[in-house]
Amino acid sequence: MELFELEARESIRDLVARYNAKGDAGRFDEMLALFAEDATFEFEDETLEGRAAIRAFFERVAERTGSGRAAAFVRHFTGTHQIDVISERAARGRCYYAVLTERGLDHWGRYVDEYRMIGDRWLFQRRKVTLDAAVPGGWARP
Amino acid sequence: MELFELEARESIRDLVARYNAKGDAGRFDEMLALFAEDATFEFEDETLEGRAAIRAFFERVAERTGSGRAAAFVRHFTGTHQIDVISERAARGRCYYAVLTERGLDHWGRYVDEYRMIGDRWLFQRRKVTLDAAVPGGWARP
Amino acid sequence: MELFELEARESIRDLVARYNAKGDAGRFDEMLALFAEDATFEFEDETLEGRAAIRAFFERVAERTGSGRAAAFVRHFTGTHQIDVISERAARGRCYYAVLTERGLDHWGRYVDEYRMIGDRWLFQRRKVTLDAAVPGGWARP
Repeated sequence: MELFELEARESIRDLVARYNAKGDAGRFDEMLALFAEDATFEFEDETLEGRAAIRAFFERVAERTGSGRAAAFVRHFTGTHQIDVISERAARGRCYYAVLTERGLDHWGRYVDEYRMIGDRWLFQRRKVTLDAAVPGGWARP
Repeated sequence: MELFELEARESIRDLVARYNAKGDAGRFDEMLALFAEDATFEFEDETLEGRAAIRAFFERVAERTGSGRAAAFVRHFTGTHQIDVISERAARGRCYYAVLTERGLDHWGRYVDEYRMIGDRWLFQRRKVTLDAAVPGGWARP
Repeated sequence: MELFELEARESIRDLVARYNAKGDAGRFDEMLALFAEDATFEFEDETLEGRAAIRAFFERVAERTGSGRAAAFVRHFTGTHQIDVISERAARGRCYYAVLTERGLDHWGRYVDEYRMIGDRWLFQRRKVTLDAAVPGGWARP
């Protein structure tokens, strides 16, 4: 494994951790900064193009589910992260996620990602979120 | 930490992720390719020697539990992965796993591993799977 | 990312894994060796200063919850680990944890950490543990 690949993989792991940490904390500015300006975000039947549209989506979700509404907190765990580095500036990945609230396991699914190095930072060029299942009456399926 | 150890640890983390990703997806050819030709796989009272025997074991499990039978899907999360690099071509590791199906947490346990670099790839030389607990009526304990 | 940062991040990830692996196995000597001699450990309203005080805390917890008492086993999974390397010898981090016993998910929360390189090893200089929630009648809330 070449050094650029080691660096890419470490940076991508960091990116994936920060996405969930920022999102769970409601820090949408910092979360949005993890996306390329022209990134695509897909969730169920919605495809959002560009940071502004992605921001609007997260603000809509937060309005319904924000702090103290659907749950006191949400914590996204990710796992089984496969990273495929394609070049010095492009990579793909996929991983699982599982979300805990104060009531326990709430919902879980998968992320399928494309990463790009833009300037000197690895960012999401595309993230597709799949919901595999959710506990009825919880955060994701109120 | 020397560069070869960084590379080894990153490659081993990747190996451990791919094992579960491939297994959960039913891609046994790709999963088997992660084992050394003469690898050992242990589960409960069974010890399987070599890729052919390991393949037969997984095919038997899949027959009982494959897609749409015992569960709509299985997702293995691993965590708390300790990696001990012994030399440029040998390492040991251990980690926890937890499996989600569409019904939630299904079963969980531990992997104890030996890794070898064979050619230019890190592979499983030995994997021992321990089941710590399982939800009755689920995938692992139907 | 410079090579020292790659090494720091890998070493810190290893540190965080070993803390839980050693703790879950009741290997307190090895667990304590992961803390700086003058480390601080915070949990709820307690602040423990130095390895001797931290050891006394863990021995007290073990007396109440040790092997076969509150649970047959505990397995700490960590996730969403953000690591911020400040210098060649100082870093900060935070991550989530979730604990399984033989009954399933037991309790979950967060670690907020300061790491220091002391000699040639990264150690905990400070760890703050927050309990977010626990299943009633389990290990953490008997």
